[in-house]
Amino acid sequence: MKIIINREKLMESIQHVTKAISSKTAIPILAGLKIQASANGITLTGSNSDITIESFIPIEEEGIQFIDELEAGEIILHAKYFPEIIRKLPSSTVIITTDENLQITIQSGHAEFHLNGQDADEYPQISAIETDTNFELPINLLKNMIKQTVFAVSTSETRPILTGVNLKAENDHLHFIATDSHRLAANKLPVNHEISSFPFEQVVIPGKSLNELSKILEDTEDKIQISISENQIAFQSHHLYFVSRLLDGKYPETSRLIPEESKTVLYVDTKTLLQAVDRASLLAKDNHNNVIRLQTKEQQIVEISSNSPEIGKVEEEIEAEKIEGEELKISFSSKYMIDALKIMETDQVKIEFTGAMRPFIIKPTDNDQILQLILPVRTF
Amino acid sequence: MKIIINREKLMESIQHVTKAISSKTAIPILAGLKIQASANGITLTGSNSDITIESFIPIEEEGIQFIDELEAGEIILHAKYFPEIIRKLPSSTVIITTDENLQITIQSGHAEFHLNGQDADEYPQISAIETDTNFELPINLLKNMIKQTVFAVSTSETRPILTGVNLKAENDHLHFIATDSHRLAANKLPVNHEISSFPFEQVVIPGKSLNELSKILEDTEDKIQISISENQIAFQSHHLYFVSRLLDGKYPETSRLIPEESKTVLYVDTKTLLQAVDRASLLAKDNHNNVIRLQTKEQQIVEISSNSPEIGKVEEEIEAEKIEGEELKISFSSKYMIDALKIMETDQVKIEFTGAMRPFIIKPTDNDQILQLILPVRTF
Repeated sequence: MKIIINREKLMESIQHVTKAISSKTAIPILAGLKIQASANGITLTGSNSDITIESFIPIEEEGIQFIDELEAGEIILHAKYFPEIIRKLPSSTVIITTDENLQITIQSGHAEFHLNGQDADEYPQISAIETDTNFELPINLLKNMIKQTVFAVSTSETRPILTGVNLKAENDHLHFIATDSHRLAANKLPVNHEISSFPFEQVVIPGKSLNELSKILEDTEDKIQISISENQIAFQSHHLYFVSRLLDGKYPETSRLIPEESKTVLYVDTKTLLQAVDRASLLAKDNHNNVIRLQTKEQQIVEISSNSPEIGKVEEEIEAEKIEGEELKISFSSKYMIDALKIMETDQVKIEFTGAMRPFIIKPTDNDQILQLILPVRTF
Repeated sequence: MKIIINREKLMESIQHVTKAISSKTAIPILAGLKIQASANGITLTGSNSDITIESFIPIEEEGIQFIDELEAGEIILHAKYFPEIIRKLPSSTVIITTDENLQITIQSGHAEFHLNGQDADEYPQISAIETDTNFELPINLLKNMIKQTVFAVSTSETRPILTGVNLKAENDHLHFIATDSHRLAANKLPVNHEISSFPFEQVVIPGKSLNELSKILEDTEDKIQISISENQIAFQSHHLYFVSRLLDGKYPETSRLIPEESKTVLYVDTKTLLQAVDRASLLAKDNHNNVIRLQTKEQQIVEISSNSPEIGKVEEEIEAEKIEGEELKISFSSKYMIDALKIMETDQVKIEFTGAMRPFIIKPTDNDQILQLILPVRTF
């Protein structure tokens, strides 16, 4: 194998695929990064037991030449050293050659590295997933769907299925749902006939996979193609192929958790509430598991407070746009409330309560595509 | 006590004094931050067993009003919560009041915090150090002197005196010296008569104190006043008073470590050498205690190389401006060389070797105010 390649372009691809590589892998060869040179360009691959990422660099694109010379071949490089070496090379061009003894030579300017490689035949074969279920989404929309839900997945392995985001097509909508059983984040996207006719009922994608995918994808309106098989999901965008395993098991039915009626409804400015909750949480961190209190008062006033006997207490009154229904005193985790408010894109939110002991719902005021649900904490 | 004060100005002072506050202090009251309001303004104090930092906020300065109301008094606030609270307050003005029960009320906009304070009488008295030894330096010059030496102090407590920077006045120069016994960093500053007449022979300032001082000081040409007593050193700049204890014991005489003659002298571009050493260190990190090799070759060529049997090897040839004297092969820590080259401010450095087993010296080519010394490693 021999490649003469633009260093920056190579570095960009390396950064993508190393997101899948872990030094703590149970399969030693997966601590490596695979480089494969073929007639059209080179493909880099990184993988762990959950995710595989492939990045392709074409010889040239839109008149820009990335690769000056190309002899086919493949090799596994040490993912701990290779990226740092490429990053610190002196010249804008890198020459990578391999010999029959799996020795790799990396040259750039006057610097010359010789690394021990591993046989690419020992690397697991990654085949494209076989399925007829595929659809497209704009990348920025997908990133948003992930951002608005993935923070709510469970970080505990007691119920592994809750560490994933539930994806399903239902009632002409594509739904993303995540819950750790104390709070729930859901959003939905109206879909055209194509998507609603999906054969799959639902899948559960590991939260970690979605976080890594979101980091790699640039915030563009370009489309990404999504393919789903029985145990894998693949995302294919321009020169990037991202495959994740799906979680086994049935995701709990969450729709009945969501109260259908409400007794108190608040309309408040998102940022004002977020900042008041953030301040109240300052004293709630140590002693009360982040619990703060919300209380409605007369004249559209909402009081946010927190009390930590050893340190002190905090109270803040904010003016709501509108308060409808019964008076209310309720306690909840400030962390969950901050998480929920942070992803709201609207200036105002609507919060629907059904009493101090029942889950409550936070929504944008002008649409119902996002739904956040939080379970209160009993303190009264 | 009652203060109505500009939030940003208060935050700036808090950030300065918290540099001295540690939550792990053996004296519980020192985990607090002292606020003292007097007729002219307020003074914040933070302290640990090594450092005390005081920051003063005047009522007004250069036509800018910082404090709108001021009633004298003093209190100790919890340094874990107070800074975060001030940082997150909603309004640009903060009202702080205390009552006779050591309760503190912090108001800003609609937010109101009540914190438990501690009696300021329990806080150790910090008195200005008594000495006639004081002199002035421009702040940017002092910061430079610190930067060029402090990285070389020892991080091990086996010889506590080496964890400090040695400051002494000798031969019309002010000297800063730091060594961890494997490398040494020294610089000197020509001084006027005033300084050379100092009564102190030498002092040793904890490296940590100098690091904190350097972080707080802005990079200006304003003067800072330095006062030295038997066991303390104080730095006084505009509204900031920084006191550090001095280290007990005698600093080793380092001048005889420095070779007086040289057998090989290299003149090289600082950045070229730094980058080549940095690349060679990539493969030296794990297996060889960061050791790399430098070898002179014909035609002003210097080869930098490193070999790590399991991973691979690297070689790079750089062109020196000039090589004088004998041929040379020498091995040394890439980390020490990187540290030494990073603080060089000149485009070129001069490296003087006295053989593969003797310490070598790195200096700027055009002055001898900075001297870096590194002990080689025996590998041949």
